[in-house]
Amino acid sequence: MRTPEEIIKSIVEKNTIKDVFFAACGGSLVDLYPGYYFISKESANMHAHWLPARELTVSPSRFLNEHALVIICSHSGNTPECVEVGQAVLAKNANVIAFTHAPGSAVDREDFNPIIYDWADDVNQNEKPQGIVMRILNELMKAQEPDYDKYEDVLDGLEKADGIVRRAEKKVLNRTWLFAEKYYEEPFLYIMASGASYSQAYGFSICSLQEMQWMNCCYLHSGEYFHGPFECTDENTLYILMKGTGSARVFDERAEVFLKKYARKYEIIDAEELGIGEIKDTVNEYFAPMLFYQMTVSYRTALQNKRQHPLDMRRYMGVVEY
Amino acid sequence: MRTPEEIIKSIVEKNTIKDVFFAACGGSLVDLYPGYYFISKESANMHAHWLPARELTVSPSRFLNEHALVIICSHSGNTPECVEVGQAVLAKNANVIAFTHAPGSAVDREDFNPIIYDWADDVNQNEKPQGIVMRILNELMKAQEPDYDKYEDVLDGLEKADGIVRRAEKKVLNRTWLFAEKYYEEPFLYIMASGASYSQAYGFSICSLQEMQWMNCCYLHSGEYFHGPFECTDENTLYILMKGTGSARVFDERAEVFLKKYARKYEIIDAEELGIGEIKDTVNEYFAPMLFYQMTVSYRTALQNKRQHPLDMRRYMGVVEY
Repeated sequence: MRTPEEIIKSIVEKNTIKDVFFAACGGSLVDLYPGYYFISKESANMHAHWLPARELTVSPSRFLNEHALVIICSHSGNTPECVEVGQAVLAKNANVIAFTHAPGSAVDREDFNPIIYDWADDVNQNEKPQGIVMRILNELMKAQEPDYDKYEDVLDGLEKADGIVRRAEKKVLNRTWLFAEKYYEEPFLYIMASGASYSQAYGFSICSLQEMQWMNCCYLHSGEYFHGPFECTDENTLYILMKGTGSARVFDERAEVFLKKYARKYEIIDAEELGIGEIKDTVNEYFAPMLFYQMTVSYRTALQNKRQHPLDMRRYMGVVEY
Repeated sequence: MRTPEEIIKSIVEKNTIKDVFFAACGGSLVDLYPGYYFISKESANMHAHWLPARELTVSPSRFLNEHALVIICSHSGNTPECVEVGQAVLAKNANVIAFTHAPGSAVDREDFNPIIYDWADDVNQNEKPQGIVMRILNELMKAQEPDYDKYEDVLDGLEKADGIVRRAEKKVLNRTWLFAEKYYEEPFLYIMASGASYSQAYGFSICSLQEMQWMNCCYLHSGEYFHGPFECTDENTLYILMKGTGSARVFDERAEVFLKKYARKYEIIDAEELGIGEIKDTVNEYFAPMLFYQMTVSYRTALQNKRQHPLDMRRYMGVVEY
């Protein structure tokens, strides 16, 4: 199998990429968001698009052509929406890269340029989807944009991310137990973040809590919080705020000040306090989502244990037809 | 004051627009979404961007230049995030159009190309922000894209939208009362939509319920529902599903089938049943959000009356410093 670096090299040798589409479903869509945010912020020549896979099939962008790169991700490898979108964009001569955990699955086909990732606990972050996305995009930027000056910083981040995540995991273990002890019976909570890490507020909600714990919750952009949602804030409503880094951190800081003044039940998960600063300031905002993902695993595991609701229990997904 | 049509004409006379940014906060951000969706789907030459206004100030896209059009919307005209973003993008030679309800406010300045809209009940939909956005973009597409063939259909939609919305408002009055009677004590609900109308699931949640009723709720993309959130579905959880039109309707239809099978408490608001089909199929998906907005007004008014929670009551917004 070719490495992510070899795949992107073979694509840019043939075509200049002008549009990068990130298309997947649920948790895989979450994993692609930091890459979308990275291109949107850093690129002078490429536009980024992030959307539920089937949106791209039913409403195909007119920029789907040989200058488009479509990154899809399907953990099972057989998500129908992902298989369909891959085929649909190939018909428009777009370039596809498909991530999957499942060798031999429907997206593991040569014209999709498959990348098989391992998902075991001991796998390095730079071999998991969020890491692979950054590896691909870092090479893409280097190959195409002469003024791109973050290549070495991203490589350094890819090197350090795994250690940071593992140390943070140990560091938060006791606080996740305390969180679960205090809040396991909460009927509802809000989860806030911004920037590249907004994806993890979304993922924490839809995957870790709604799917795996059947817990009702809502994700919010911590800037948008002040334009409506904050009116729900009171001493009884629970909030989790993920404080990212980079230029979007101002949103999270503002929300933190407000929560400290007007809420009583809140949990702050701060990427800075958890060590993301070991990676250079120029790029660490793109790595914070990897760290936050692992924190969602830690918190949901504490909740599962206290609530005695197995993370893998499903009543619909893979159980009934829909 | 110049008309929206005159403003866009003067802009395209000077520059070719290649990127359209839609930047605002809260309810105003909601109003700009259908325009973002329209450009993303229809344009062969322009890219669209939709984001909380301050994101564009703290992480400026590298496509902010003389070929960019930045549409901002501030109801009060003094939203600091909107004023700042307007100034920041002018410094990059981007073109600005600012919508506001407030003549003489901070965004009502000549270099922002202001459009003052009226917000009274009797004002035609095509004079309110969602209508004005479609008027501007329709002219922009006609001026720049020779193969654009929906110009007349959009004009026809702008002509018909107001009547459709007013008839729908009468049609749903009793059902909004029944909804409030049944569900006014619900602690939580989910609101789903997709396509251009996804904005109205978001707006219904953050403005009508979280802000105006202090009711906890969560917006969902009706396609993403199947990739996690649907595991919360049971006989006790309340859902509102807004069924839009156009190619995204398949998402909503799939969610409806599921709700009918596995939920007991749900409300379907169907743009088709409410008359959106009077506008041509080619474009009516872009007008469904106007219709849905008015439905959110109807539902929240019924809730306010039953819950005796005034829509205009605020505990933080405009009340405390933040």
